[in-house]
Amino acid sequence: MWGTIATWRMAHDGVIAAKDILAGNGDCKDAVETAIRKVEDYPYYKSVGFGGLPNERGIVELDAAFMDGDTFQIGAVAGITDIANPIAVARKLSLDTFNSFRVGQGATEYAVLEGFERKNMLTPRAKKIWEKRLAEIADKKLNPYDGHDTVCAVALDQKQSMAVGTSSSGLFMKKSGRVGDSPLSGSGFYADSAIGGAAATGLGEDLMKGCLSYEIVRLMGDGHTPQAACDRAVYGFDQQLRNRLGKAGAFSLIAMNNQGAWGVATNVEFTFSVATERQAPSIFMATPGPNQTTVIEPITQEWLDA
Amino acid sequence: MWGTIATWRMAHDGVIAAKDILAGNGDCKDAVETAIRKVEDYPYYKSVGFGGLPNERGIVELDAAFMDGDTFQIGAVAGITDIANPIAVARKLSLDTFNSFRVGQGATEYAVLEGFERKNMLTPRAKKIWEKRLAEIADKKLNPYDGHDTVCAVALDQKQSMAVGTSSSGLFMKKSGRVGDSPLSGSGFYADSAIGGAAATGLGEDLMKGCLSYEIVRLMGDGHTPQAACDRAVYGFDQQLRNRLGKAGAFSLIAMNNQGAWGVATNVEFTFSVATERQAPSIFMATPGPNQTTVIEPITQEWLDA
Repeated sequence: MWGTIATWRMAHDGVIAAKDILAGNGDCKDAVETAIRKVEDYPYYKSVGFGGLPNERGIVELDAAFMDGDTFQIGAVAGITDIANPIAVARKLSLDTFNSFRVGQGATEYAVLEGFERKNMLTPRAKKIWEKRLAEIADKKLNPYDGHDTVCAVALDQKQSMAVGTSSSGLFMKKSGRVGDSPLSGSGFYADSAIGGAAATGLGEDLMKGCLSYEIVRLMGDGHTPQAACDRAVYGFDQQLRNRLGKAGAFSLIAMNNQGAWGVATNVEFTFSVATERQAPSIFMATPGPNQTTVIEPITQEWLDA
Repeated sequence: MWGTIATWRMAHDGVIAAKDILAGNGDCKDAVETAIRKVEDYPYYKSVGFGGLPNERGIVELDAAFMDGDTFQIGAVAGITDIANPIAVARKLSLDTFNSFRVGQGATEYAVLEGFERKNMLTPRAKKIWEKRLAEIADKKLNPYDGHDTVCAVALDQKQSMAVGTSSSGLFMKKSGRVGDSPLSGSGFYADSAIGGAAATGLGEDLMKGCLSYEIVRLMGDGHTPQAACDRAVYGFDQQLRNRLGKAGAFSLIAMNNQGAWGVATNVEFTFSVATERQAPSIFMATPGPNQTTVIEPITQEWLDA
């Protein structure tokens, strides 16, 4: 059995590429990196990699992480700049015993020294959106924060190894050096090849309050299906946050176990893409259902056209 | 009931100061900040705050985090420089809905704009140790990494609120921008006033593989005593790491539940300090015992003298 699941419709082409690797008996780590690179490289996705929206100063600061579910090895970067593929940097860092999570200038320097491709990640389109928003904020005092669609991919290969990766430009108009959940183990991602993997997209500041990726993997390890684990962790914590803090930001989680079964849960409208040995690559839409369940439907041609 | 527990003997004076706050019906958040500030301010502790050992370039980069167990609010900084009390910055950030985790230059700028005390955190003593190590490395090609004693404090106040904080200068001779577990929710710390709190010290790269602070709080929520939760999480994960990765770095965890009961577990020799309504402030030594247990003994005058 093999399979992969990834966040948001933007990941669909990456899922198709990952599927080819996995179906050909390739490695789950290559599948994860390939899926995420596709999203990083595409200039019209505004929350990941090239074309991602910048921080309040117009600088595109990127976060990414990679985890090997066989060994628990983790690599991560936060606030990296001018590097084409943060996911590849995170993957390489995961092989280091020390210094495997690097932030800011130190992360960028590591990537440069290791020969990763440099690139001005601010596209003219992203710059225009940023300038427009600056003007809106000045005029109407709008809340400057908006958009936090991380790409995450979980993959299972035919050797029953699992890996997970994340990549994000973070909150649009974030403060310099702001970090969300994407590079944070347990909050943004977690994988254990003996159980399964999970990853998150949404408001990082709230996701790190709940360690939901770790919790979902743990629940799967306790015998829950991926769907039951997602429902229990996501809706349970959403309720906890509303009770304790009075509010909960948007968040959506994906999971796959080491049998290729998958699940998602979300407190908003959330699209994702999935492919397994039993299921052709497909995009679905998830929304919160009644009684802490999730409604999952194939997306329609109508939705895609709009 | 009130209580506080903190990592390493260096935290003892801080625990005594926190005890005065808690016994006087003060707030657990003030207790945590006070305990950790004491360690940050003391020039002869080589792994925290002022006097902490620098990175490979001689720059003291500091990590810290703060979590309110009532609301799950978290603030954190990583790679902050020239700021006297990173724990105070983390605490203030925990009040922000967005941008509550800041790294590198962005973290330092936030602290400066908010008026936190600036300070050259490199003491002449720390600089000498760094220069000596550089020479040793050049001469004998020693492993440059050594030392990662984070100060962590968990506190319970008489209103049954809990908080946790961490502060560290990270690995001595770390690469620029390296981040350990200390600012990472779930790995370095976690608190839920309905259950308890936990925090970690040790090799951050391994601690973030296990999310042990979250797991210990979760186990306490399942009905385990703090000691049983620590033993189970720490020795279980130490074994997992040895099986999967072939090795496990040093790590030690502390925990307290919302009744003031406490526990610790460690895979090395580990000192800590604790004070509760029932227990006068005391320093203990913990070592791994047989069958996934922990041996805890009061430290002797002989040990203190040496």
